[in-house]
Amino acid sequence: MILRFITSNEHKYEEIRQYLKERGIECQWVRMKYEEIQDDTTEAISLASAQYLRGKVEEPFFLEDTGLYVKELRGFPGPYSSYVLRTIGNEGILSLLKGRERDAIFKTVISYCENGNISQFTGILKGRIGEYERGSSGFGFDPIFIPEGSEKSLAEMSIREKNEHSHRINALRQFMEFLENKGSA
Amino acid sequence: MILRFITSNEHKYEEIRQYLKERGIECQWVRMKYEEIQDDTTEAISLASAQYLRGKVEEPFFLEDTGLYVKELRGFPGPYSSYVLRTIGNEGILSLLKGRERDAIFKTVISYCENGNISQFTGILKGRIGEYERGSSGFGFDPIFIPEGSEKSLAEMSIREKNEHSHRINALRQFMEFLENKGSA
Repeated sequence: MILRFITSNEHKYEEIRQYLKERGIECQWVRMKYEEIQDDTTEAISLASAQYLRGKVEEPFFLEDTGLYVKELRGFPGPYSSYVLRTIGNEGILSLLKGRERDAIFKTVISYCENGNISQFTGILKGRIGEYERGSSGFGFDPIFIPEGSEKSLAEMSIREKNEHSHRINALRQFMEFLENKGSA
Repeated sequence: MILRFITSNEHKYEEIRQYLKERGIECQWVRMKYEEIQDDTTEAISLASAQYLRGKVEEPFFLEDTGLYVKELRGFPGPYSSYVLRTIGNEGILSLLKGRERDAIFKTVISYCENGNISQFTGILKGRIGEYERGSSGFGFDPIFIPEGSEKSLAEMSIREKNEHSHRINALRQFMEFLENKGSA
């Protein structure tokens, strides 16, 4: 089975391709940017994107949206994580949290479209924002995110180690179960 | 002439209604929320909104998008100003700028739709971010924004005083000239 993954982010593609390959599923990279709506929830943004892409990209396809939600910051940067990374970056998040509670979650939503039907799968990773940036693997907020029960930041882990925790893989796992149950994978 | 202003923000409606009333133009409030796209520029977001609303709202109508762009923060919060206000707020912007350059601009884009044609008008207000919040009039980032050549924050000014400086009124002024030149107002 071939699944088309629509993303402009090579890091995301690499993480997901490797996971799917180990399960005998071929992941085809549809490298494109698409318009996203503004909304306070990752779920609504991802759903609107899948609806927008339906009929434009050959099915089955899926897409993936990930946000970092910091509790003390009322969920910021949430669905605008990629913009926030490009502007204030990890350094900005650290400034905002000086002397404050550091609980945060990563949330990934996968939207899958097959025969015009859209299904969503959500993966959560609980953790906290570190005091400074650590590690050089991974991407995005990985250097400042420390998963619950770990002393390492996500950027101090190998892809394989990261995948044991990852919100992205949690969402993918549910996605795989869904495909197995309906006999497509 | 009646102009329909589409916004869910009562403060914006009040500022604009007062300005138009003094010029003998009636402003009708179309109180609705509409879907906005994600983009790094206010212009592109506003254009997409006008295109989305065309055919759904009786013409002529206009809408207004305003963003605060802080130079040291690579334009942040820019087009996501309203989300940033709801989450990290003015306090957050102040934390991010501790010990840093404070130059900023406010930018308003008005998109006007008549007979299916969309025109855009942009107003800029240069200034700087203050060291702390001051004043209680206005809304949004007004308490931390000090226009060039002023010692007061926008929130320390009356609506009339604010309108002498305002990005929003600058955009409106161009909009009015456009209407006068085409003989609609």
